Formats: sequence, C-alpha cells, structure tokens
Amino acid sequence: MLNPAAIDVPPAAAVANRFNQVRAATVALAEGLSPEDCQVQSMPDASPVKWHLAHTTWFFETFVLAAQPGHRPFDEGFEYLFNSYYNGVGDQPVRADRGLTTRPLLERVLDYRAHIDERMAALLAGGADGNLLALVELGINHEQQHQELILTDIKHAFWSNLLQPAYSADAPVADPTDTKPGFVGHPGGLALIGADAEGFAFDNERPRHRVWLEPFEISTRLVTNAEYRAFIDDGGYERHSYWLSDAWALVAEHRWRWPLYWRAALDAEFTLSGEQPLRGDAPVTHLSFYEADAYARWAGARLPTEAEWETAATAGGLDQLYDAAWQWTGSAYLGYPGFRPSRDSLGEYNGKFMSGQMVLRGGSCLTAPGHTRATYRNFFPPSARWQCTGLRLARDA
Amino acid sequence: MLNPAAIDVPPAAAVANRFNQVRAATVALAEGLSPEDCQVQSMPDASPVKWHLAHTTWFFETFVLAAQPGHRPFDEGFEYLFNSYYNGVGDQPVRADRGLTTRPLLERVLDYRAHIDERMAALLAGGADGNLLALVELGINHEQQHQELILTDIKHAFWSNLLQPAYSADAPVADPTDTKPGFVGHPGGLALIGADAEGFAFDNERPRHRVWLEPFEISTRLVTNAEYRAFIDDGGYERHSYWLSDAWALVAEHRWRWPLYWRAALDAEFTLSGEQPLRGDAPVTHLSFYEADAYARWAGARLPTEAEWETAATAGGLDQLYDAAWQWTGSAYLGYPGFRPSRDSLGEYNGKFMSGQMVLRGGSCLTAPGHTRATYRNFFPPSARWQCTGLRLARDA
Amino acid sequence: MLNPAAIDVPPAAAVANRFNQVRAATVALAEGLSPEDCQVQSMPDASPVKWHLAHTTWFFETFVLAAQPGHRPFDEGFEYLFNSYYNGVGDQPVRADRGLTTRPLLERVLDYRAHIDERMAALLAGGADGNLLALVELGINHEQQHQELILTDIKHAFWSNLLQPAYSADAPVADPTDTKPGFVGHPGGLALIGADAEGFAFDNERPRHRVWLEPFEISTRLVTNAEYRAFIDDGGYERHSYWLSDAWALVAEHRWRWPLYWRAALDAEFTLSGEQPLRGDAPVTHLSFYEADAYARWAGARLPTEAEWETAATAGGLDQLYDAAWQWTGSAYLGYPGFRPSRDSLGEYNGKFMSGQMVLRGGSCLTAPGHTRATYRNFFPPSARWQCTGLRLARDA
Amino acid sequence: MLNPAAIDVPPAAAVANRFNQVRAATVALAEGLSPEDCQVQSMPDASPVKWHLAHTTWFFETFVLAAQPGHRPFDEGFEYLFNSYYNGVGDQPVRADRGLTTRPLLERVLDYRAHIDERMAALLAGGADGNLLALVELGINHEQQHQELILTDIKHAFWSNLLQPAYSADAPVADPTDTKPGFVGHPGGLALIGADAEGFAFDNERPRHRVWLEPFEISTRLVTNAEYRAFIDDGGYERHSYWLSDAWALVAEHRWRWPLYWRAALDAEFTLSGEQPLRGDAPVTHLSFYEADAYARWAGARLPTEAEWETAATAGGLDQLYDAAWQWTGSAYLGYPGFRPSRDSLGEYNGKFMSGQMVLRGGSCLTAPGHTRATYRNFFPPSARWQCTGLRLARDA
Repeated sequence: MLNPAAIDVPPAAAVANRFNQVRAATVALAEGLSPEDCQVQSMPDASPVKWHLAHTTWFFETFVLAAQPGHRPFDEGFEYLFNSYYNGVGDQPVRADRGLTTRPLLERVLDYRAHIDERMAALLAGGADGNLLALVELGINHEQQHQELILTDIKHAFWSNLLQPAYSADAPVADPTDTKPGFVGHPGGLALIGADAEGFAFDNERPRHRVWLEPFEISTRLVTNAEYRAFIDDGGYERHSYWLSDAWALVAEHRWRWPLYWRAALDAEFTLSGEQPLRGDAPVTHLSFYEADAYARWAGARLPTEAEWETAATAGGLDQLYDAAWQWTGSAYLGYPGFRPSRDSLGEYNGKFMSGQMVLRGGSCLTAPGHTRATYRNFFPPSARWQCTGLRLARDA
Repeated sequence: MLNPAAIDVPPAAAVANRFNQVRAATVALAEGLSPEDCQVQSMPDASPVKWHLAHTTWFFETFVLAAQPGHRPFDEGFEYLFNSYYNGVGDQPVRADRGLTTRPLLERVLDYRAHIDERMAALLAGGADGNLLALVELGINHEQQHQELILTDIKHAFWSNLLQPAYSADAPVADPTDTKPGFVGHPGGLALIGADAEGFAFDNERPRHRVWLEPFEISTRLVTNAEYRAFIDDGGYERHSYWLSDAWALVAEHRWRWPLYWRAALDAEFTLSGEQPLRGDAPVTHLSFYEADAYARWAGARLPTEAEWETAATAGGLDQLYDAAWQWTGSAYLGYPGFRPSRDSLGEYNGKFMSGQMVLRGGSCLTAPGHTRATYRNFFPPSARWQCTGLRLARDA
Repeated sequence: MLNPAAIDVPPAAAVANRFNQVRAATVALAEGLSPEDCQVQSMPDASPVKWHLAHTTWFFETFVLAAQPGHRPFDEGFEYLFNSYYNGVGDQPVRADRGLTTRPLLERVLDYRAHIDERMAALLAGGADGNLLALVELGINHEQQHQELILTDIKHAFWSNLLQPAYSADAPVADPTDTKPGFVGHPGGLALIGADAEGFAFDNERPRHRVWLEPFEISTRLVTNAEYRAFIDDGGYERHSYWLSDAWALVAEHRWRWPLYWRAALDAEFTLSGEQPLRGDAPVTHLSFYEADAYARWAGARLPTEAEWETAATAGGLDQLYDAAWQWTGSAYLGYPGFRPSRDSLGEYNGKFMSGQMVLRGGSCLTAPGHTRATYRNFFPPSARWQCTGLRLARDA
Repeated sequence: MLNPAAIDVPPAAAVANRFNQVRAATVALAEGLSPEDCQVQSMPDASPVKWHLAHTTWFFETFVLAAQPGHRPFDEGFEYLFNSYYNGVGDQPVRADRGLTTRPLLERVLDYRAHIDERMAALLAGGADGNLLALVELGINHEQQHQELILTDIKHAFWSNLLQPAYSADAPVADPTDTKPGFVGHPGGLALIGADAEGFAFDNERPRHRVWLEPFEISTRLVTNAEYRAFIDDGGYERHSYWLSDAWALVAEHRWRWPLYWRAALDAEFTLSGEQPLRGDAPVTHLSFYEADAYARWAGARLPTEAEWETAATAGGLDQLYDAAWQWTGSAYLGYPGFRPSRDSLGEYNGKFMSGQMVLRGGSCLTAPGHTRATYRNFFPPSARWQCTGLRLARDA
C-alpha cells in the first residue's frame, strides 16, 4: 500500500490532467464493442468489459469521493455490485457470476463513469491535499491495470466465441526483433532492489532493500516464436523431464501442446486483430509459468529471479523490457523484507495475494503507456495463460 | 415424429397466416430486453434469448428452406452455431457456452429472422405441398415451445441478476382459484390415450393406444401456495419419510427449503414482474418433481399417472388444466407402445430424451395460446425447478 | 414391504433351517479372501465384503433381535456403523467411506455374525410368531441380495486391482447356449402381473394387477457375446442414432467402447476366475441399460417392458430366464398401481428408490439359489455396468 | 540429488549397520497394525502403510540392486506397482488408487522386504564402492522420511475411521514447554546457508550460498495450544484481515475452525494414542501454512524465512528445534542459487516439486532419530494439515 506521507506529490492540476486522460483512454478501449461484447465473461478468471468500466469507477467513488462531506452515492446498489475483493468494504458478488449482471446496462455504466468523472473534476479543481492526491494517483494506476485486463479479457472472450471476431484491425502487438539471442553477464554481489520512498509505486514494490546475487547472465531479448517452436518440435510437451510435477499434471489434464492462442498447425495465432500468421521473430506470448520454466530447462537455462531481472534491467543493455510481453521469473510472489500491508481496506490491494503466484517483470505491448517501471511486480498463478506473458532466459555465470 | 402423410393438412394460406403470427409473437417477447439481457445464460439448462431467436429461425432454414432448390444460406456459420442437439445435422456447440456467443449481435439475429421470414412467405405463397406444410406446422409448434422457454429462461436470468429487475409490469401469472379442493372419481377400466392420426401432434403423443386403469380419484384443481406452505410449516423439507432417496440427497445438497422463487420469509416470490406478495390461493409453481412427489405423500395422496391425467382431463370437470402450471405426473417419460422415432434428423426431436425424465401434463400461464392439448406430453428431469411447474393430486379410489 | 399378516408363514423350523443355510453361504463366499480383500471399496457404488458381512447381520439385530425383551447390543457402535440407508433407524456413515472402516477387523465381524446367529437360533427355537417369522424371511432374502453384491463388488475390486487376481478357479459363469436366436409371439390383451398375497415377495412386487398389452414377440434367449461383438464391429459405439441422449454423453465422457470387463482386443474378459477367453455363444454381460437399449435399436428391436417379460416368462418357452444374466427392461422402476410402502423403517426398503432407475428381470448366474422368481423386480441406474446384466430382445408383433 | 563423488563416504560396515537398523524400525512401526489397517488410504495425499513398506523396498531394488549384474526382480509387477512418481523409471499407478491394491497381501510385502534386505546385506558385505554406498545412504534417508509418513498417514486413517482407534498407547508426542515466550535478536548481514559438500544431505539443501538478512528477531520456542486457542477465541477464523486470499477461501470451503485434530469443544485432540485432553503448554500441531501465517499476523509477528530460521538455529539458543513439530516458514520451496537437479531418475527426487509448496524447517516428534539437521528443507502445500506441523514466530528487529 502506498504511504501517502512518503510520496512526493505532484500538483493537483497535473493529477487532474492525468486522471482525465486515463479515464478517457479506458472508455476508448470499449468503443468498438457492442453491449453484448461488454457483457460476456468467458471464464471465472476473466471479467466482462462492462464490469471493468464500472469497477474502476467504483474505486474512485469508494476510496476518494465517499470520504467527502455530503457525498451521495450514484446508485445505492453499486457499492456491493462492483466491489472486486475488498472484504473491508463489505461482501462481494461471486466473481464467476459477473457475466450475469445484465443490469445495469452498459449505457448506465457509462453514465456512472461520466457522473463520477464530473465529481472528481470538481474535487480536484478545489485544491486537493496530498493524501487525497495520493489516493487519486493509486486509482489512476489501478485503472491502468484494468485497461490491460480489458484487452486480455476481451481477447479471451473473442477467442472463445465460435466466430472468433477481431477486436480491432490495428490492435497492439509485440514487435519482432532482428537481434540475435545473446547474454549479458552480471558479477553478482550485494544489490539494491525495490522502489525507494519517492514517487508512485505499489506497496508490494517497497521497501527498497539489499539482496545478495551470485554471478549470472541474462538474455538481451525475449524468446521468440521460432525458438519456442523448436521446443515443441523437439517433443517438449511430451517429455516429463522438462516439467515441474504440477506442470506435468496440467499438461496431461488440459492437453497443452502449444501456447494458448496458437493454431494446431503451429503457423498462425489468434490475436486482437483476429487470426494472423505466426511471426517467427516475434516474442512468444500467452505461456504459463510452467511452459516458460519447461522451455528454459530444455534450453539449458533457467528463468531469472526477480532480483536478477531488476538488477540487470537497471544496469542496462536489455531489449524488449517493457513493451513486448510480461516476463515470468523464477520468484514466488512474496512480501519484501520489511513489507507491511496497511490495516485499512486498501491494504488488501496486494498483500493478501502473496500465496501461490509467481512474479512477472517488465511490461507488455498491452500495458498502458507510462504505467510500468523497473521495480514493478506483476503476479499471476503459474497456470495462467491468458495474459500477454513470455520469457527471458538466465543462467549461472 | 409427425408422419406427414397421415395428417389432415390445413391449406397453405392458413399455415402462412399462423406462421406470421407466431413468428411475430416471438420477437414481441424480446421487445423490452436490451442486447445484454438477450445475451446472458444464467445456467447450462437455460439459453440466451438471442439464441432462442436464432435457433427457431435455424429450424425453418435447416428443415424447410435448405431442401428447396437453389437455397443459399443466410450465413454459412449459422448451421453449426444454432444447432441445438441434432446430431444428424452435424456437430453442435457446447450447450453451456451459448452465453459466450456475443457475435452475431442481436441486431444481426433479428435480420436473420426477417430474411428467413421473407423466404418462408415466398415459399408458402407458391403453393406448398402437404409434406412441406407439415414440416412448417412442426416448426411453428417448435417455436411456440421456445416462446415459453424464453420466458422461463429470462425469469431465471433476472432472478440470478443481483438487481432482480422485472421483465414486464403485466407478465402472465397463474390465476388464483376460489374453489375448494375436491376430488372427482373415475371407475378405471380400459382407456384409450394418445393422439389419433388426425391433426398435428408430436411424435411422442402417438400412437393412440389402450391402457388399463384401476379406479382412481383426481383433484379438480392444482395445489395452492397456501397448501404448500402448510407442508413447509409442518417440517416437510426436514423429514426424510416424504422424500425419494435421490430427492433427499438433493434437498441436502442444495438446501432446498421452499419453491425456487419464494423468498425466505415465505411471503413473497420473484415473478416476471419482479418481487410480488405471495397469493395463498394461487397455484404453487416452480417445484421440482421431487417436491411435488413429497408434497403428495405428505398430503396422503400421490401424483396421477399420465394415463389417469389424460383420461380425467378428457372426461371433464377439472379446473386449471392448461393455463395455470404444468402438472408433474408419476410417469417416467418413455415411448408409447408401438412408438417408433423416424430415422431422419427430425427423429431426434423427442425420442432420444426418453431417459431420466418425468412427464408433465396440461399447460401453463406461459404457454403459447393454442399450443397445448389433452394428449400433450411435456417432460423435464425430476430436479428441474425453473419451469412453470406445479401439481394436481390423485389417489386410489 | 411385506405385509406379515398376508403371508402364508412357513413353520419356524423350516425358517430356522433356511436361516442357517443362507448365513453359512455368505461366510463361505468370503473364505478365499484376505482381510485386505474384504476391506477394499473400489468405487462408491460398491461396498467392502466386510461391510456386507456386517450389514446383513446388523439387519437381523436391528429389525428382529432389538425388539426382543432384554436385548443388549453386541457392540453399541454397530447400529450406526452398519446402517446402509435406513433414515428411520438413524444417521448413517457416508457410503463412499465404507472402505475406511478398518476397525472392527474382519475377525470381529465374523464374531459378530456368530454371536447374532446364536441368538437368532435361540429365538427361532423358542417358537417365533408369524410376524417375526416374516421378518426373518425378509432378512434371509435381504442377505441373498447381498450375496450377489459380494460377488459383483469383489469382481470390480479385483478388476480395479493392478494385478487383477482371480477370486476363485471355479466361480459361476453364465452358460453358453447352442440355440439359434428366435422369437415367440404373444397376442397381447389384458394380463395379470405382480405377486399375489401368498408366499414371500418384496413389497415392490405387489399388488398383483392388470395391464393391457399390445401383441409382441420376445426372444427365446439372451443376446450373446458374438452378437454384441457384431454391433461393436458395425460401429455401434460411434453412431449417435442408436443411443439415447444421456447415453451418448456418457459414451463420450467415459469412452465406452465395449462391455465393462472386456479387453480392448475384444477376445477376452475379466471374470471371477481371472481373465478368460471370450466365448461367443455365452450371454453378453456387464452392460449398462444404455448399451442394452442401443444394441436393441441397432438390431431393429427393443427391450421388453417388464409386463411383457413377466407375461412371457410365465407363459413359458424362454431359455436363460433366471440363471444367466439379469435382463434390462424398457420400464422405469416405479410403484405398481396401489403400491403403498409401509410407514415404518422397513418401508424404506424399496419404495424410496423409485426414481431414476430401470427394472431388470430374471436372475443371474451369481444369484443365490431359490432367491428369484417371475415377479421379481431388480433395479439399477441406467448407467450401472458392474452387475451381471445382459439383455433379451423384444419387438412389436 | 546427492552427488556421490562429493560425499565423505562412511565405511561399508557402518552403512550396513544403519541399513539394518532403519529397515527394522520401519517394520516395527507396522507391528500393531492388522492387514486391514495397512491397506487403507484415507485420502489421496496419504498412502497405505503396506504401500510405504513396499515402496521403500522398491527404492533399494530399483536404484541399488537392479544395477547389479545378474539381478532378477523379486516380482516382475512390482517395478510398476510401487513406483511413486519417478517418470524416468516408467509409468506409475494413480496415486489415489493405492488403497485398492489388496494384492500383494501384507504378508507378501513383508516377504519382499526380507528378500531385498538379504540381498542388500550380501551386497554390502561384498565391499561396496563409494557410489553405491552413497545410493544406500540416500535410500536410508528416504526410508526415514517414509517412517514419519507412516505415522502421519495412519493417524489420518484412524481419525477418519468412525471408531477412531488408537495406534499405540505410548506413541510419541511433542513435549510441552515451561518456558516463557521470548525472542532472540539477530543483527542480519551476509549469512551462509545450505549444506556444504561434506556428509549426507539432500540435493535441495545445496549448494551452500550467501544470503543477505535484515535484522530480525525469532521466538525461542514454538507457539503453544493455549496461545493458539487465544487466537480462536479472539475470532481468528472469522476475520478476513488475518488471512491470505487463498486461505480465506479455504477456511470458508472446508469450514476450518480449529486445527485438524482438535475436537469442537477445543479441550481435546485426536492423537496416535486416541483422544487425549489438550495440553495448553504443548506446541500446537496439525496447522496448515495458512493457519500458521494467519496466527502470526494476528500476533503482530510473521513467519521466519528459511534463511532466518537456519541462521538462528545454528547461532543457537532456540528450543524445540527438531523434536516437537515442523515449523512453517514464509519461504516458497524453490531451488537455491546454483541448484541443478541431476538428469537421471533420482533427479526427480526433489527438484520437480519446486512449485506451489512452502518450506518447513526443523523436525517433529515423529521424525526418525538422527534424520534431520539445520539445513534440512521439508516442504508441503500451504493447505496441508495432516503432517505434524506448527510454527515459530519472527519479526523485524
């Protein structure tokens, strides 16, 4: 959780400006979608676009506006309806049932957004204090996270749709690379990782702290589709020795044979722009941690730890850090030494998920501009495949 | 399956007229609904309204128009997309995934309807032969079945919705009765049941055949909410001795304590017009077979067999036969002696479901006008509660 | 439930004699089994042999001895431990957990049997009245049912065992037939089926009552392995048109391709004497109702109703009625007209299972000698395959 | 995996001696158990005692004897039957079906043990080389692990048994403590953890490596039953704020309200000696990681990392390190820097489980004497409760 007192707060006008831009960007993501498209929930892990539109708005109403004197809720039912998982705020609807909420209609959710945006504008125009600006900053970052989820969730929904429609003709993709694979070395030793006290960061990025690193090498770019294809062709999905025990069971259960959105012919993949030929020189994406880990073992390498990743990323010389695909690390998602989530509802933001998930670093072609940084810690269960996830190799020096 | 040769076929003009009326009535049912409302599938047993609109249209395209010379499909993908369960026509999408089909949009499905209606009008205007008119008649009856499903499915969807919106201020309800409960007797003996060869009937209503009946008595009206409430108040849901073994397990598993749409306070129920006070003199509805059977045992009676029901219904003197609630019988849904489903795709219409279901007789306040008759055999699994289902008591004389 | 008053009670000495023989026969069935063998429960539907040994004893203690003045239970815990499903007697352990009950040990269960047998002998020697003799008769028949279950359950357990051991070198098998398949006709008309008031019969066989039959034909013998093999070779398991809808889903889910105990090469089957070559002229066994029904449809025939079966069986001329395999009928297991289960605990014996099951008629090579008769109604869910079940064809005349 | 070359190998006679002692101790654990007791598998995570007896023997046959010239297997089927999870050795039976393997009988498994012991004695008497002695040492340690599992699995089986029998009147228990809770501090800095190259250690304890520690404090003893009771009484299981998100879902799903073997009255617990009064001053045991973590949060503390634990354990001054209960740490079970599992079958021993599990440190009252050490890394999923698991608190200094 962010500690408002410790943040170098930007002036209210700058925050208001960012607020407007980010909020408008979210609505823009839904512009080509019908009310039906915004309604559908293709699996329990995904959420309807309409829900994302409402929940990000609920965040500002609940954590910013509700504390203002004289606040009257836009709709009494929304506090419950659009709470994602904040037990401290009250009960929440069952996650898997989000797709059943046909009412409120999309139109009304857009009204809700406009209404809250108006009130937020008034509040920010009135000279908000540092504490409040810090909350708004958190809300903006929270909304940017949901922007990426809107894209990954609608991609999954359209892929689940029998007609497999395209979301947009010019949706973002991870750029191919013409560089050769190569490793840069790091001598190890005591390193400092994590966000310092200045500027915005999520609570899980703090405190900045020391870690000891053994000498290591890390790849200058991400693993490509062509490289991953070689793993498949070499029987990668059929040999137990590359796989963790849990992974091997999942491979059998779900009959994994290639990345989530690849076609069986291994020459095309489903994208936000519909089915497209597979580019061998583009980064492989939509891998689970288990697949990334198995690939690395096959390649005689391993995944970097998050401390190695961050250290190497700030030392420089690496490509495809933030704009191609999130990169699985070999680190379980746990609190840093000295991490303490706050006791209020926002303390539920990150800390309570520190179990059963793996850390991803970097950013993807779907990440909102300016959202990520070297200390950013993304996290998903090791079986998750619907995010824009790839891998970068590491090895002992 | 209907045997076209054996049917006294009405003139083409009359069929065309009925076709137009029934098709328009289906669209009218969806008029107050948003695209989101038409998209949602609240459980695997229910289907989205949009799917009903498309599937009933698919029926005419597949079984009537596709056989016409020069037919070109409205959309190549629809044959697969809107096939419900006709293996003879080809594979079908997974039933539980109907709610994921955001595309085609509602608008396009309505275009599909208009397009097929136009072609059907042209065909019928051209002087259709008896075989074809019989198929159209089957399609009309099929569509009327889906009209009732549209209402029961949207009721379930709106009830599942956290806001529990109303479908319509003046949706049909089962009328209350001011009559006392009473039984009429029947002496038993050899009876004839089932549809004769004249006029439209579904294949499962034929052939007309003899059954031997022991003397019995049957109630002149349906069990009311007030009567069912007495069963609840007497601990009906807590005493195993009223329940079949399978039923008792379900009561425990799902914690059934009252009919599906009743409130816990037992004084109101969710209806198509939203929550309404419970009328004690209205028929109890949305019971599973198991609950109807348990109630009957508690009341010292039993459910009628379907032969008893049909014999008594045609002998006369019974109220609430066709316009209140479908009435569970004690008969498993099986083929009549001499029943033979045809070998073509339409042979899948009824025969292949003759396993694990119980027969309901009569009709409900949601049944399309003119759709039902004394020989009509409705059927659902004994655990189904989302249909408009109630009961009429019987006992040995 | 049997109505003791209505039964022509045999003298106490005859009952005592039968009691001793049947009780000893049960123990003899377990003689070649180790304590481990008697412990195992290979699926929730099956029970450990030890449990069968104890439960049949519990029946006599609970329903006969407990009512005697001065009765003291052999072990306080057994009333709960070995109750199968009698809610009226009290709660029962979870069925699927029977295999966990390592204590009491097999030895102690055998002591329990000896102890109860001794008390029963004393009671019967003391001149029991008609009511009590009728209860003992019921207990004897109940025990015979469990004798067959011991054999089918241990067969399933040994088949589930990776070593697939043999139960006995000379276990009973269904004899082959050298007769040609043939049908005998019946003119139909009013028939009388069910047990009359004299002699022992289960409650579900009564009352004897009239049914109307259309003319029909029924096969003189059971379907053989060779005939069933022809169905498989003809793609029987791959064509939806032979299968009920529920059946087709199960075939896919469980990948059914042949009867339960056949080997994939279709030339051998697992038996109580271990793996044996498949005899083409022996009756096919271990079929579900769904498979029997599909076979009949493929063969251009159907399953007989239970009324047809009973009428034809008593009219004579049929082979393999009682000593080969139980014969699936097309009749759902429901109460006869006028059937009323009694209100005491024994009323739970049959009536509460009248839902979701199909009737089997006849008897099998595993049925205890003298246990079955023409009016006997066996019943299992349509998916059950681990009983010794086959089929006899019928068709409309 | 152990690297035989790097181990200071004890002379063959010492190994042979240890081998005999440990093998005999395993059989002694099963002495009071009947064949039925040794057969039962009370949940998929647990295994039958008979299986443990056989599998530990299989280990020596497969990894030691099979490589000897002229080896003939004791039983051809056993290689498959008693393989736990070594994909490199071949397929394995489904884990959850171990309880179905009634054959081979217990007696034959004991013969198997005697036979393999004899051959091992001959081999060791013949002057085994260092590589082979290292394999035997690994097998001995493997067998000791299964000794503890025999006790925890039979405890679970007897607890699942409705009669809840006692395993032994004088089974080991975690001794109570009369010391006050207290913390000792550590200044942090660079620490060395992990096993060095000398002596036996599992592969996952290596290599010894540097870690940076922040200053911390760690409790001198384990949390007691009385202390844990205070957490329960304070509503610990009802307040979400103490629990990780995954944990909170499990608490609801399984209705966890107290440690696994406590009675609802919170004054007694099931032990290997049957139900016993709960001692307030004894360490709390049979907690999942989730419960340990929630307790620590409630207590204003946290779990130690494994590096903190090992550093503090070797610095000294802590009680109840190895003989009371395994101690959950806050560290996910992952490979140490530089860890590389070997490529042969034994490489599957530890490495492939490095996903989804948490590290436990120390040892328990059920651990075989001499088996554990400060660098030992035990691991179980965070939901596991049937092991003898407790906790020691830590906090930032």
